[in-house]
Amino acid sequence: MPAALPPPLLYADTERSADALYFGQVDVPDPFVAFGHGGRKYAIVSALEFGRVRRTSGFDVVLPLEPFMQRARDRWEDRRPGPAEVIFLAAGDLGRREFTVPEDFPAGVYARLRDLGLKLTISDGPLLPEREIKAKREAEAIREGNRCSALGFAAAEKILRSSKIRGRRLVHRGRTVTSEMLKFAIESACLQAGAVSANTIVAGGDQACDPHDRGSGPLRPHELIIVDIFPRVTATGFYGDMTRTFLRGKASDAQRSLVAAVRAAQLAAIRGIRAGVNGRDVHRRCVEVFDARGFRTEHRSKGSVGFFHGTGHGLGLAVHEAPRMSPSVDCPLRRGTVVTVEPGLYYPGLGGCRVEDVVQVTAGAPLMLSRYHYRWEF
Amino acid sequence: MPAALPPPLLYADTERSADALYFGQVDVPDPFVAFGHGGRKYAIVSALEFGRVRRTSGFDVVLPLEPFMQRARDRWEDRRPGPAEVIFLAAGDLGRREFTVPEDFPAGVYARLRDLGLKLTISDGPLLPEREIKAKREAEAIREGNRCSALGFAAAEKILRSSKIRGRRLVHRGRTVTSEMLKFAIESACLQAGAVSANTIVAGGDQACDPHDRGSGPLRPHELIIVDIFPRVTATGFYGDMTRTFLRGKASDAQRSLVAAVRAAQLAAIRGIRAGVNGRDVHRRCVEVFDARGFRTEHRSKGSVGFFHGTGHGLGLAVHEAPRMSPSVDCPLRRGTVVTVEPGLYYPGLGGCRVEDVVQVTAGAPLMLSRYHYRWEF
Repeated sequence: MPAALPPPLLYADTERSADALYFGQVDVPDPFVAFGHGGRKYAIVSALEFGRVRRTSGFDVVLPLEPFMQRARDRWEDRRPGPAEVIFLAAGDLGRREFTVPEDFPAGVYARLRDLGLKLTISDGPLLPEREIKAKREAEAIREGNRCSALGFAAAEKILRSSKIRGRRLVHRGRTVTSEMLKFAIESACLQAGAVSANTIVAGGDQACDPHDRGSGPLRPHELIIVDIFPRVTATGFYGDMTRTFLRGKASDAQRSLVAAVRAAQLAAIRGIRAGVNGRDVHRRCVEVFDARGFRTEHRSKGSVGFFHGTGHGLGLAVHEAPRMSPSVDCPLRRGTVVTVEPGLYYPGLGGCRVEDVVQVTAGAPLMLSRYHYRWEF
Repeated sequence: MPAALPPPLLYADTERSADALYFGQVDVPDPFVAFGHGGRKYAIVSALEFGRVRRTSGFDVVLPLEPFMQRARDRWEDRRPGPAEVIFLAAGDLGRREFTVPEDFPAGVYARLRDLGLKLTISDGPLLPEREIKAKREAEAIREGNRCSALGFAAAEKILRSSKIRGRRLVHRGRTVTSEMLKFAIESACLQAGAVSANTIVAGGDQACDPHDRGSGPLRPHELIIVDIFPRVTATGFYGDMTRTFLRGKASDAQRSLVAAVRAAQLAAIRGIRAGVNGRDVHRRCVEVFDARGFRTEHRSKGSVGFFHGTGHGLGLAVHEAPRMSPSVDCPLRRGTVVTVEPGLYYPGLGGCRVEDVVQVTAGAPLMLSRYHYRWEF
């Protein structure tokens, strides 16, 4: 039995740190100190946060920051005290000398705490590995995020379907249809449903061949349009993450083969997902489908073509979290984990296609946590 | 003349790190390596980002991640290589042994790079201090963010003004007016203007006395309602940040005194802002106004009352950045800096009031970068 690690120590805001949000179950917009000690959770927050955190959080002990800052100023007169001094004093009060910190713990605080004599272990992997396993309530929160994604697809599809093809333009109510127009419709739909969708991707034609190009300008008829929506539900902090690829007009045979291959790869991957399977092997299933159908992946000097990203990633309070399903990552899938399944193919000239759903890993067939149809040509 | 620091090294995504966004002038949603060497800016990015970053960023040299990962796997067969190994190899290729990293550089990468023998200096203060000084283009981008905030106030005010007072309720088109209703109107207005307003605060009555309570449920007539809107403009990444306090119905004399004191404190602060002045002294001007008018600040066991937050903070690619104008922070204001000016008073039972505008520091009177009227009772 391995020795237990020292309890966690965090210095982060909950907007940027999913660990901090998970640990304390409360929003704190500025970085604050949180740690475990004796099986209890401690937070040290400013007057600005004190009442709310004490009233609504999962912390067992909430301490006001200001007295620690005063003690720190009295003790270290030669320097401006900061979070390291506060942590050092609070740990001293409790007789604690050791903590485990996450890999993304701020180096400035880390180095100063080591100088002060605290023993810090940097976590090799997630600080709170239990975050990866989603309880029913958490899986439902992710499903709600995906419901918002689906509302976004419906809004985008409605505009595309009702738009008219005028040469190389699509026209909706007299206006040229653009990535921006669709993104506004999508993000409004998410907002109305209680989620914030930032950085939504609506990319057509060759833009879609750069998977992180968010898309801009006019969308063309007869071109593949990738729509990737990852809204964060305001009430829970959990994300949805889904992708569909649409085409308004008439697809070519090559486009149809591309889309069919991506969906076939996705289904092969989903069939391969169950507890204990390695994420690398799920990824390989997609590669095999693409190989069998003649879709090659190549890394060229101007960029890559084919299938050059991972098949999926964990989803939860962060939009990208453990585990990964990628060619070079040895990562067995655990029961209760929630992952995206999102193979894609990208060939400038022909276009890009990605289809993404979200599943929860079980001992048997995975549980689908996302739902939207797969009709794409209209 | 102090010795120049080694060039910067970053490992961050541009969503969470304003430094990374500022340094490379491009969005990269996953953490990536960026550094300076020989006066040039380097980035190391995956195939997923390569084409777009090379085409659209401010980096002078963009290197593909995959060959570094392959070399790292060949060299360190006993461990899974990560960003530290990639940085070590890239620095070695260039003959570089030293970097400066920001205080929030990830401790895991920091510790591993030190083990590998790289010399890292942790920046004492901002890594890129030039970020604090806003060029005309940057100040205009902040002004645009504030224009979105103002559109949000207009949307909220419109609902409040047209709502009917029915006992303790406000009714708009047959529906009870809530914090959520106003937030939706505000965030829609921002979205339409090209900005994302997350975590908008619309808090009435005693909720507003907790300055980071975002507000929920019905808004009451004759109560002060704090509306704080800090949208991020999607096109530029810059934030706006403004606050107004509204009241639908009839204010009491005590409420009027409170609001008048806050606005007087804000004007006193703005009059005191110019290049070279210490932020601490600007803050003191607000405290003096409140003292003179009999508004006391007290820290009680259940929370604080009065004026218990700083007068303002820097604003830019981050919503909170250097400098601070706070009681205990020794921080001279530099010409070109952009700061919020946002005194507030909070007394449960009476309510909370905060008024926030944004100014750019000059050698003379500060330049206003925000605009919305100050009528609050209607």
